Amino acid sequence: MTDPFVVIGGDAAGLSAASKCRRESPAREVVVFEQGSWVSYAHCGTPYFIKGDVEHLKDLQSLSPSDIEERGIDLRRNHRVTAIDTESNVITVVNDGESIEYPYGELLIATGARAVSAPIKGADLDTVFTLHGLPDATALRSFLTPPAEFDSTNLGGGTALDVSIAKQYGAMQPPETVAIVGGGYVGVEMAEAFSAWGCAVHLFQRPERLLPAFGTAVGDAVASTLNSAGVTLHLDEEVDQLSETDGQLDSIVYGDGDTLNVDAVLIGIGIRPNVELLTETSVELGATGAVATDEYGQTNVENVYAAGDVAELEHMVTGETTWSPLGLPANRAGRAIGATVGGSPTQVGRVAETAMLKAFELGCGRTGMLDHDRAEEVGFDPITKTITAGSRSGYYPGAEETTVTLTADRKSGQLLGGSLVGADRAAVRINTLATALGAELSVDELERQDLGYAPPFSPVWDPVLVAAKVLNGEL
Amino acid sequence: MTDPFVVIGGDAAGLSAASKCRRESPAREVVVFEQGSWVSYAHCGTPYFIKGDVEHLKDLQSLSPSDIEERGIDLRRNHRVTAIDTESNVITVVNDGESIEYPYGELLIATGARAVSAPIKGADLDTVFTLHGLPDATALRSFLTPPAEFDSTNLGGGTALDVSIAKQYGAMQPPETVAIVGGGYVGVEMAEAFSAWGCAVHLFQRPERLLPAFGTAVGDAVASTLNSAGVTLHLDEEVDQLSETDGQLDSIVYGDGDTLNVDAVLIGIGIRPNVELLTETSVELGATGAVATDEYGQTNVENVYAAGDVAELEHMVTGETTWSPLGLPANRAGRAIGATVGGSPTQVGRVAETAMLKAFELGCGRTGMLDHDRAEEVGFDPITKTITAGSRSGYYPGAEETTVTLTADRKSGQLLGGSLVGADRAAVRINTLATALGAELSVDELERQDLGYAPPFSPVWDPVLVAAKVLNGEL
Repeated sequence: MTDPFVVIGGDAAGLSAASKCRRESPAREVVVFEQGSWVSYAHCGTPYFIKGDVEHLKDLQSLSPSDIEERGIDLRRNHRVTAIDTESNVITVVNDGESIEYPYGELLIATGARAVSAPIKGADLDTVFTLHGLPDATALRSFLTPPAEFDSTNLGGGTALDVSIAKQYGAMQPPETVAIVGGGYVGVEMAEAFSAWGCAVHLFQRPERLLPAFGTAVGDAVASTLNSAGVTLHLDEEVDQLSETDGQLDSIVYGDGDTLNVDAVLIGIGIRPNVELLTETSVELGATGAVATDEYGQTNVENVYAAGDVAELEHMVTGETTWSPLGLPANRAGRAIGATVGGSPTQVGRVAETAMLKAFELGCGRTGMLDHDRAEEVGFDPITKTITAGSRSGYYPGAEETTVTLTADRKSGQLLGGSLVGADRAAVRINTLATALGAELSVDELERQDLGYAPPFSPVWDPVLVAAKVLNGEL
Repeated sequence: MTDPFVVIGGDAAGLSAASKCRRESPAREVVVFEQGSWVSYAHCGTPYFIKGDVEHLKDLQSLSPSDIEERGIDLRRNHRVTAIDTESNVITVVNDGESIEYPYGELLIATGARAVSAPIKGADLDTVFTLHGLPDATALRSFLTPPAEFDSTNLGGGTALDVSIAKQYGAMQPPETVAIVGGGYVGVEMAEAFSAWGCAVHLFQRPERLLPAFGTAVGDAVASTLNSAGVTLHLDEEVDQLSETDGQLDSIVYGDGDTLNVDAVLIGIGIRPNVELLTETSVELGATGAVATDEYGQTNVENVYAAGDVAELEHMVTGETTWSPLGLPANRAGRAIGATVGGSPTQVGRVAETAMLKAFELGCGRTGMLDHDRAEEVGFDPITKTITAGSRSGYYPGAEETTVTLTADRKSGQLLGGSLVGADRAAVRINTLATALGAELSVDELERQDLGYAPPFSPVWDPVLVAAKVLNGEL
């Protein structure tokens, strides 16, 4: 009898792998250990649950525990893996104070990532939050709901709800002034959520622009929209510490000692892969700090795989390894590893770091490499152009400006990356650029694509084609 | 002195060519002869002017006559070219009863296409329309406007307005019951426009489905939406004739002699290229009946080019010539010919027959080859799959079903074509497929593209990826 396929982590990568392995190899024993009580939930949906656009925590689950068990997966929630022995193919698991050893045939590390708050002093105060997972989302939504309206059963968390967290924050007066530290995905999305609850929102960002990964045009457009929505931006501003009075947060200290009284702080300065479990093993990390893997998601140790936010992947443009903790690559890599373990070797795929983001009424998208320093490091001679064009025929109601940025290699003309921002279906247009990148098109080839035109949906020259035409003119 | 670059036809292809030639070669004499009084107008926008979403005729113009003259183009409206002598490089032009001869260095045939109504008897009655150009749009909008509200100056046509047409139809009682003959682009878009004015709309379509070029899934979805909107569909139904009483339309006769009393009929059964001017010349037509051209848009006669709805182009998937009378290829080919004539040889580009269409709340898109017979003719072994997936994360408000159809070659796995339909930004997603086609991706490669994900815009697995995954599983 073969030892089971053991998966550590019950979210996107882990459960995709477990499900696919069972489909490929229905007799195979598949066990998933998840340290928390939630499984298969959508991280990216938490800002919309906090905002109230999504009513229930359970709405964010794509599979319930019983769905998972129906797939023939042995799911163990509240089981924390504490050690991996890659010599004897055994892991140590702790549940309810009991420690057991569990053998594996193949092992998948899908332990994800966590939000970081260091080195900001005061980050452990009660009303200072990070956002990474449903317990954080529970606390924030409960805190924002006025106590008179609060009822923990309305959160729709079922038996997985952490009732004590919900009740602690649900009993508190909602914050009036909120500071967000960090102007990346979480910071921008949460600015919208806090604003929707009527909070005065201050967003602090150390770089001079929001969303650096999206390039300057998107950062500027989002800043302008946040400003118009009443969010006070503190760009190019370092946060020093969060100060307290009698153990309660009272202000944020920034810049040259300026202070702002705040009732809550959300720290969204980044995430780090959960690799601590591997420090005592021979599983190697890559230069990014995430687990190094080959094209099948296998680590340097045979029969040990890694996928999702804990693992590196190959970048589509550079061919180098990158750490791109996003939803689709996690699902795809998990699914591929499940197929491989189930007997059908499947590559985990490459990433273009394609991402979309909503910022109030704006949709944003980015793909590939926009950063010139990074492009130069891998030998490209980058050139970037930004254009603005209409989202529809100019005469058709609802047309909005769409700003497209394209970066290419001056020597070969190869498209390296792009971004889009606008209020009328700009975000989905990023898929045109992502596909062009994946197909290794040159800017000249992109310009010659036969894209669609109809007055309600797109002008004759799609904004992407306009951008390609302008950039091509410079090459 | 070089003889001028002469363009016949002042719309998309002709004016793109004239403008580009002047930019490339500012000293070059460029003359455009247009037989009508309107230039540079958006055909595709006319249903929205008739519906009332677009207020003025002039809104549909991308360039006014004075804009065109500011570009240094010698624009002659109401000038009808009646003959071309390709031996002596001279055309004959009639204006206001006077005939002149005009020499050319290079000539561009950009005479466009016209709507056909034959062989339907009764098509010449006053309240039987086709829709191809602003005079048709003027008549229809005037007819639909109640006489008490009608004022021809409100049409925003300026001096180009055909006031007699406007006043004739503006004085008539608006139609209560309208029949549309033909369920292609014009028929579907005009069903929406007539409905918006409160007409009872009957749509007659000879094939068993609407929009055959979009494939069965789109045709069925649009039929369902039209039904829900109150449009009565007569599919698989042949229209025999339009009958009259005292010279006035009174009914449409169809099927086995069924009749329906109607106040107006719109015939949208297709368009044909305006090639009559060439019958006495040595310029050759292709098998489609449109003008045959090479990759630079040149006809078989040196220095005579053709572009836009009158000309053939090369199909991106088959490499064969096709007739694809759509806006972007017309603009692109015109621009390329202008560059070539101006001294920078530029290919006119290939087409994938990519198109988008709005049908009430649905957005539709199509690209490449969906038709199995046509695919088999050029040597492919086609296979088609249709899937339905969400347009956004399921829990995010506004998510709608998105139906994706992909056709591939079973032997090579090459993507041959695709279509999309849905109520939430389905149409713009066609550009992902158009780009994949243009890059000659296989279905397997398409499945591995790193498309964007964010709950408000796209589920983790974009509907296009879901379709590729399912079709790939069959290959």
